[in-house]
Amino acid sequence: MPELRHDPIQKRWVIIASERRAPPTKLPRHREAPAGAPCPFCEGNEAMTPPEIMAVRPDGGPANRPGWLVRVVPNKFPALRVEGELERKAVGVHDRMNGVGAHEVIIETTRHDVHLGDLPVEQIERIIWTYRERLVDLARDRRLKYMLVFKNDGLVAGASMQHSHTQIIATPVTPLTVAGELQSAKEHYHLKERCLFCDILAQELDSGERIVVSGERFVALTPYASRFPFEIFIAPRRHHHSFAEIDDDAIRHLARTLKDVLLRIKRCLNDPAFNFIIHTIPNIKATPKRTAYWDTIEFDFHWHIEIMPRLASVAGFEWGSGFYINPTPPEEAARYLRDVRLE
Amino acid sequence: MPELRHDPIQKRWVIIASERRAPPTKLPRHREAPAGAPCPFCEGNEAMTPPEIMAVRPDGGPANRPGWLVRVVPNKFPALRVEGELERKAVGVHDRMNGVGAHEVIIETTRHDVHLGDLPVEQIERIIWTYRERLVDLARDRRLKYMLVFKNDGLVAGASMQHSHTQIIATPVTPLTVAGELQSAKEHYHLKERCLFCDILAQELDSGERIVVSGERFVALTPYASRFPFEIFIAPRRHHHSFAEIDDDAIRHLARTLKDVLLRIKRCLNDPAFNFIIHTIPNIKATPKRTAYWDTIEFDFHWHIEIMPRLASVAGFEWGSGFYINPTPPEEAARYLRDVRLE
Repeated sequence: MPELRHDPIQKRWVIIASERRAPPTKLPRHREAPAGAPCPFCEGNEAMTPPEIMAVRPDGGPANRPGWLVRVVPNKFPALRVEGELERKAVGVHDRMNGVGAHEVIIETTRHDVHLGDLPVEQIERIIWTYRERLVDLARDRRLKYMLVFKNDGLVAGASMQHSHTQIIATPVTPLTVAGELQSAKEHYHLKERCLFCDILAQELDSGERIVVSGERFVALTPYASRFPFEIFIAPRRHHHSFAEIDDDAIRHLARTLKDVLLRIKRCLNDPAFNFIIHTIPNIKATPKRTAYWDTIEFDFHWHIEIMPRLASVAGFEWGSGFYINPTPPEEAARYLRDVRLE
Repeated sequence: MPELRHDPIQKRWVIIASERRAPPTKLPRHREAPAGAPCPFCEGNEAMTPPEIMAVRPDGGPANRPGWLVRVVPNKFPALRVEGELERKAVGVHDRMNGVGAHEVIIETTRHDVHLGDLPVEQIERIIWTYRERLVDLARDRRLKYMLVFKNDGLVAGASMQHSHTQIIATPVTPLTVAGELQSAKEHYHLKERCLFCDILAQELDSGERIVVSGERFVALTPYASRFPFEIFIAPRRHHHSFAEIDDDAIRHLARTLKDVLLRIKRCLNDPAFNFIIHTIPNIKATPKRTAYWDTIEFDFHWHIEIMPRLASVAGFEWGSGFYINPTPPEEAARYLRDVRLE
């Protein structure tokens, strides 16, 4: 069973996933996956994954067989597991929980060697629809405080599988980064009775210099204080706190914006490795309604996607300070991305 | 001039170092430095660096010529610059400062291809002595709130130069990570009138299972909630808040402990890339004495070194959550490291 440990200095949780353990010289490194090994995410290899949680199968047919368009399976080496009750205990000055949670993989396509941005827009819609379905389903488990949707694409972005996929990790505590965003949004709202993210979007749309794609329902921009070159922020124009409540029309628009942005990044930066993550509210069902988080969360939080092309390594300065050095002014990055010609 | 920008969502500062800018496809990537280029850090190539700030030259002799043992130079592409007054302004909902600060490189040896852990212990003493000298000198500049000493060793750890070196970046604000540690330490002290770090050291020395090196004046251990496999924490046994006040005897002991730990990591993990950072208090001279930070800082903060071997990539989950997944229980890492045979 994995366990969660709390660092009282940085106040962050760590998952000690000892099922993934290996002797020191066999630990994963920045290196290629063995060539020629069959891919468990390819159509026809369904038996190589744990049994599927759900799949999009327009023509029906049995589970764990070909005929799917999007497929969701448990991670074979999960960072957290769904079994058991959550137990919390003190270890002297430290805190420990057992590793209750969920870790799922969304296989985005049957094709082994295709970039998410190159998939047809209808397929990207199905993928986003699948994210929503999984978030709604996982939220029924009251042990799970937060569900993080994230994508690792490329070796240096931490992807161990080349076949395009997204992951969801559901954790029994709200992660530090999300808690920080919730806190900032709440402080801003209490001060001004406005959403911090809506204020930022309004300012960016007024100025225009950091806008990459200005769609009917979604805006993609390079944040004013971008940590990384060509970092992208995508948010719905209309205020909404919860990705899990995205409607079908918004899914269609988001698929178009996401495809557009991913293709611009791919062309502009010569197909870099990248990560993206979705930040939405914690699982309301898992937290008493009257705690500080919830009183205004519908008004103060605004869900969004962060995309990070992985160009340079994060080094000692960033690790030691939480400060970032970015060589590319975001205004310049936005201009380069806007100038990309898509057919 | 570089500029500092503040992210109101994550409350973190970013350095937009546009002097380092490059077109999108020329941005630094994870790749080898060009082979055969002369190294500006090697003895004899002193003219290739900006003029030296200081050097250890036991036999005297002119600056910027051979004959040194440790040499400090400004970074040729500084993230921050020492010129000018600090200007702060609002950019709508955002904040901006001009990039006042300092960025120095400590060249640890005249030899091009040697690992810090393989240097003679007397040389490691000189390097630590140099860190102290630079911190004391930089602290005279009241614009500089914090001085971060950090080392990138190896490509995946973000080192652009192979020749062993350390860097110091001095910033006009206290970095978020340090502010978080200061806050945790202060809360613990106000609650218990004890140092959080002293409490952790006492608990770890009692248990022993995560101790790597237990020296007369320094302890090296794998933290209970290690983010990364084989992460190491080194701290003085005796409570002290400021690395800049380290005495000569402690320098001798620290050099031995650091060499021991670096060699264990090198042997155990097959010479991995690594980062280390020193966390000490902010520059007291730059901050009014009566602000919240300072009332108990001598009692509540405890300087320390964090060493991070860079084995696996940090991926979307970590970026999106501030949560870490570590496959190696720190007890196991400590055992492996203790079992390494050094001559």
